[in-house]
Amino acid sequence: MEIKVNTGILSANEQKAVENRSLFEKDRVFTINIMGSPGSGKTTVLEKTIDILTGTVRLAVIEGDIYTSKDARRIEKHGVPVEQINTGGACHLDAKMVSGVLNKFDLTGLDLMIIENVGNLVCPVEFDLGEDLKIAVLSITEGDDKPMKYPLLFRESGAVILNKMDILEFTDVDLQALRQDIYIINPDIKIFEVSARTGQGIDQWADWLTDRVNNKLKEKTAK
Amino acid sequence: MEIKVNTGILSANEQKAVENRSLFEKDRVFTINIMGSPGSGKTTVLEKTIDILTGTVRLAVIEGDIYTSKDARRIEKHGVPVEQINTGGACHLDAKMVSGVLNKFDLTGLDLMIIENVGNLVCPVEFDLGEDLKIAVLSITEGDDKPMKYPLLFRESGAVILNKMDILEFTDVDLQALRQDIYIINPDIKIFEVSARTGQGIDQWADWLTDRVNNKLKEKTAK
Repeated sequence: MEIKVNTGILSANEQKAVENRSLFEKDRVFTINIMGSPGSGKTTVLEKTIDILTGTVRLAVIEGDIYTSKDARRIEKHGVPVEQINTGGACHLDAKMVSGVLNKFDLTGLDLMIIENVGNLVCPVEFDLGEDLKIAVLSITEGDDKPMKYPLLFRESGAVILNKMDILEFTDVDLQALRQDIYIINPDIKIFEVSARTGQGIDQWADWLTDRVNNKLKEKTAK
Repeated sequence: MEIKVNTGILSANEQKAVENRSLFEKDRVFTINIMGSPGSGKTTVLEKTIDILTGTVRLAVIEGDIYTSKDARRIEKHGVPVEQINTGGACHLDAKMVSGVLNKFDLTGLDLMIIENVGNLVCPVEFDLGEDLKIAVLSITEGDDKPMKYPLLFRESGAVILNKMDILEFTDVDLQALRQDIYIINPDIKIFEVSARTGQGIDQWADWLTDRVNNKLKEKTAK
């Protein structure tokens, strides 16, 4: 009984994700879904990324939070279109919530849509939003045991951003063990070591992301 | 339809939580349910707490994780009874999972049962496990905006442990704003500022917890 109900919910989400994906495809908008624990630094990474991409990549942001529009207000200051979704208690975004704000953007004028999910290392990864790529953000202050304890996000993500590298020396984290565990879970994942606060490493991540956006544009042009 | 199904699930959990609570009450075992983000330091706080309480309080631990028994192995080394629950994907413990391991403990010989929940700032708080008290652990590295973004845990908890205070100066966290937001959400909550790594502040938390354990023992003796 429970399984049947869950399957129903997932299928409805999958259906809506397919619709979102076709809207993004139509206008060649590369879409990423950023996930990580509360306080891993998703929004700060995003702010630094926006500052680098501005002028080269036309982007917009969807902010997911249970409550408050604190994050959307932070993003707004960087001069890009942003919409806040409040889940009102739910531990993740779903494709329907994303669909509900898509008409507020002019997708034809965008190259990149960034969706920042609710802070949660568990639930969001189970819900396809119609994105091209999932991105994990992990603060090194969370400890080196996290990938093995929460493997699904790392298995499903195209890249993981290891954030707060500037305070690595004040933690007991074994960076090599952390990297090794991530590669065991997902040998194809790209790992970026950054500090969103100092800006360290953000360039490499932004370059990699820009390449993905451009590849999508090229693919489409070639058709 | 969805609401009806959810109500059904919650009622089943509530029913099982009542059973757990009556088992704890029967043997005068004070029970806490520790919750917080992945990497907030729940297990390290617990290890330091156990070392202080050993000899005065007879305690046992239930470790909740999605996968791995890393945390149970850490607790084992401190010489207290411990059982690991792996939720196999679920983002929280429920009362039935806890019930499933209770028969592995000799409750008559315990004063305190500590349940460490899955690392998640959202889902666990919605599931009563039969505990006396919920405890929140928040690492100050998670940022001062977290209570307002994830208020439910702070509203429901009897105490919040602000962990990793030893690296406060390397963050941009406004500690006064953080404390203020927590008190706005829950004026009655007790806030402990600790560093599980250095041991700073753990004594105060352990004393407060010991008082609660002793109060429960007294209440019962008085009956």
